[in-house]
Amino acid sequence: MHLLSPAGFRAGGVTAGIKASGRPDVAMLVADQTAIAAGCFTRNHVVAAPVIVGREHLLGGRLRAIVINSGNANACTGQQGLKDARRMCALAADLVGCDAQQVLPSSTGIIGHVLPMEKVETGIRAVANALGDSREHSDRFMSAILTTDTRPKQAAIQVKIGKQQVTIAGVCKGAGMIGPRMGPPQATMLAYLTTDADIPPARLQRAMTLAVNQSFNSVIVDDHASTNDTAIILASGRSSRVADAGDVRKFTEALAEVAQSLAIQIAADGEGATKVVKIIVTNAGSDSAARAIARNIANSPLVKCAMHGNDPNWGRIVSAAGYAGVPFDPDRAMLTLQKTVVFRRGRPVDFDAALVSKSLDAKEVVVQLNCNQGDSEATVWTCDLSREYVAINADYHT
Amino acid sequence: MHLLSPAGFRAGGVTAGIKASGRPDVAMLVADQTAIAAGCFTRNHVVAAPVIVGREHLLGGRLRAIVINSGNANACTGQQGLKDARRMCALAADLVGCDAQQVLPSSTGIIGHVLPMEKVETGIRAVANALGDSREHSDRFMSAILTTDTRPKQAAIQVKIGKQQVTIAGVCKGAGMIGPRMGPPQATMLAYLTTDADIPPARLQRAMTLAVNQSFNSVIVDDHASTNDTAIILASGRSSRVADAGDVRKFTEALAEVAQSLAIQIAADGEGATKVVKIIVTNAGSDSAARAIARNIANSPLVKCAMHGNDPNWGRIVSAAGYAGVPFDPDRAMLTLQKTVVFRRGRPVDFDAALVSKSLDAKEVVVQLNCNQGDSEATVWTCDLSREYVAINADYHT
Repeated sequence: MHLLSPAGFRAGGVTAGIKASGRPDVAMLVADQTAIAAGCFTRNHVVAAPVIVGREHLLGGRLRAIVINSGNANACTGQQGLKDARRMCALAADLVGCDAQQVLPSSTGIIGHVLPMEKVETGIRAVANALGDSREHSDRFMSAILTTDTRPKQAAIQVKIGKQQVTIAGVCKGAGMIGPRMGPPQATMLAYLTTDADIPPARLQRAMTLAVNQSFNSVIVDDHASTNDTAIILASGRSSRVADAGDVRKFTEALAEVAQSLAIQIAADGEGATKVVKIIVTNAGSDSAARAIARNIANSPLVKCAMHGNDPNWGRIVSAAGYAGVPFDPDRAMLTLQKTVVFRRGRPVDFDAALVSKSLDAKEVVVQLNCNQGDSEATVWTCDLSREYVAINADYHT
Repeated sequence: MHLLSPAGFRAGGVTAGIKASGRPDVAMLVADQTAIAAGCFTRNHVVAAPVIVGREHLLGGRLRAIVINSGNANACTGQQGLKDARRMCALAADLVGCDAQQVLPSSTGIIGHVLPMEKVETGIRAVANALGDSREHSDRFMSAILTTDTRPKQAAIQVKIGKQQVTIAGVCKGAGMIGPRMGPPQATMLAYLTTDADIPPARLQRAMTLAVNQSFNSVIVDDHASTNDTAIILASGRSSRVADAGDVRKFTEALAEVAQSLAIQIAADGEGATKVVKIIVTNAGSDSAARAIARNIANSPLVKCAMHGNDPNWGRIVSAAGYAGVPFDPDRAMLTLQKTVVFRRGRPVDFDAALVSKSLDAKEVVVQLNCNQGDSEATVWTCDLSREYVAINADYHT
């Protein structure tokens, strides 16, 4: 399955020359009919122009198209930026045959440069002429939204609701500047999801908010919340009605599963990453404490470097839990690396360091901290910190 | 001048074999007479045994000696750790001829390993027999407290109070796990300061708390608050009495200057660092907002990598200010890199990128963000993020 497996959508991607690399950089996703839409945007106080415009256009809960450029974030670009974001919508609307308010714009790339609108407009015209609903079209769309990503990211699921299968699909981009804190109609991660479910806007927004919190808002590469983070779902209504509480639960769970798969793909493709580190905090005193501890561990460069070096230096993990700004009692806690307990109730546990180091040499590492202080838990996905991360972000020049 | 320039102190450092490298690892600082003492300790909930014991012993505001080992943090070591920290004090007290309560213990190094007490005790006996007040003794002390530091760090100042010169001196260690949040009698940075001022304990503690906030608590390498962070000052009382408000102000300013010099030396010697980055946030809406914004910029790996690569990628700085969790309005803000304005009131400013890049190729880079929202300001010192940081923390194995 792919982004266009749910009935009612077409997409495409083209090269417009915004990126110096010559890779695809303009994409569109278009619903055959006006779609129910919901989404979450960055909570950064510094908000890119397309996010400002996108929030406005999402207010009605209905969209016909999403128009995207990569290679330039159109952030910190003042009034000109806003004008350019609105122009992207107006042009796409003309080409699709809808109102500009029914188009959501997205941009990703460097901050503080005015969009090269001639190239952007040429790109939008080209992509509007090259839309389709095949896997190839989905692939072109996925490629055109990438920046420092090394690979495209997609996920899809089918769930039976009512009498029919409902399909939920999604694609996303993001490798650096990943520490999303998205709120409802409020990553530079971008995620676009499609579904053929028939679901009212408020219900879709609630499902999306829940799914985003359990997925994109729980993935950290560098913890840098972007000016452009955006996650949007469009529902075409071509399949079953999400009619009752049971349907909502099924739909939300399926949506969260797709979003979580996408989020984990972002961690795995984090700039310079060689592995995903899944941090599970259990039995914390409160949900917010569980989340703060998991995030603080995920954010420690010392922990991330140890993970890169397959070093069972658990003291870095326990000490990171201790300065998360929430209650934490090391005398109650137990820490497990992969499946080995390394720390229990304030004291080190004897373990075979060579064996644990070997177990850390894996594509996914699980760090589990049991706080023994309550019954709250949180899971955060991150990646290791490598020399390659520094190379990507220090040598790449504006 | 050096740590032992203020009258009334002796020190030393020896090699006890705690470090595999064979570098010096046990140190003592001893006051000739009981000294007035004040200090700040880590606020991490995971607290090393020597910090627990040190807090108790500092309660009386009087100390005779500080006994230190490097190469092992004695943290997360349970009851055995506490027993070992107390034993360090008892042995040092015996050798110096004072009460164990008058000795403050410090440890720095890896977390979660029980101290090799035979080596530690042999070291304490050796150093107690090799104390002196010369520059050489100060140098030996400085070397024995280092871990991943590439060089010792010291500062000293003289200020006229009353009829005499008062000398304030200090040494410190710290290169990694640097993100101190120290509170009064509560950095693995360690700092030991001496003065010959005659000053009562409460007044010394107030001066120290202020100085620590403006120095060690404002330096970030990896923002990882350690289990062992400690900053202590001993006052021998051999020079002038700090008698009135004017004297207190003079003394506090001089103390802050010494502490600030030490803190900047920590940033400059940060693991893998090639430069110090001084982040000045001005005209913020509140002191806490100024501080949160400065810390968030200092903590962004994207900003630190850009600084390493001399890349004037200012969008990373502005966006970091936007997700500090405090009010920030990009439409009012102005950002200056070295002396070039690069962003003003929501919009990019035309500048010569090659020239600014060249200006960033310096030992100290100044990033100044004027929020134009109020009259609060904060300064934080950090360093760049290099491949060498990853090498130090990924390849170094427990």
